[in-house]
Amino acid sequence: MSYHVEVRVVPREGILDPQGKAVHGALSNLGFAGVAEVHVGRLIRLELDADSSEDAQRSAIAMCRQLLANPVTEDFEVQILQGVGGPV
Amino acid sequence: MSYHVEVRVVPREGILDPQGKAVHGALSNLGFAGVAEVHVGRLIRLELDADSSEDAQRSAIAMCRQLLANPVTEDFEVQILQGVGGPV
Repeated sequence: MSYHVEVRVVPREGILDPQGKAVHGALSNLGFAGVAEVHVGRLIRLELDADSSEDAQRSAIAMCRQLLANPVTEDFEVQILQGVGGPV
Repeated sequence: MSYHVEVRVVPREGILDPQGKAVHGALSNLGFAGVAEVHVGRLIRLELDADSSEDAQRSAIAMCRQLLANPVTEDFEVQILQGVGGPV
């Protein structure tokens, strides 16, 4: 069965986020007031074949640990959005 | 009142996504089978002061149009996660 998986990779709390800082500055320059904080991360959408949603989640976590996220500076969240197709 | 806003910026359907392709290739090389598709986008978390959640949403959409997303190649989604603090 095929699963849509959404992975969010965000800079760890307290770690310098230069991209977020740059966006914050640019928003101020454009006249957007009231922006207190900006953090920029990555969003990775995967379509995975797996036996179950637990299996898909396990795979996605392994991918984060090995490739998608920097274990020193980033945190990740994995969300299984939906299963598509499968045995009727 | 302060609102947590999550903005997802993703490559538009059908537009070349070189970063997604690169991640797909790297996952295959690492031995992850069963990956059918990969798309890589950006996740922007904002903390905004606004009068209402509609107001926060409007601001965030304007930010996407002016800075956060490329209107030619990317789509965006804005989600108001929660309001924090405010008049008791």
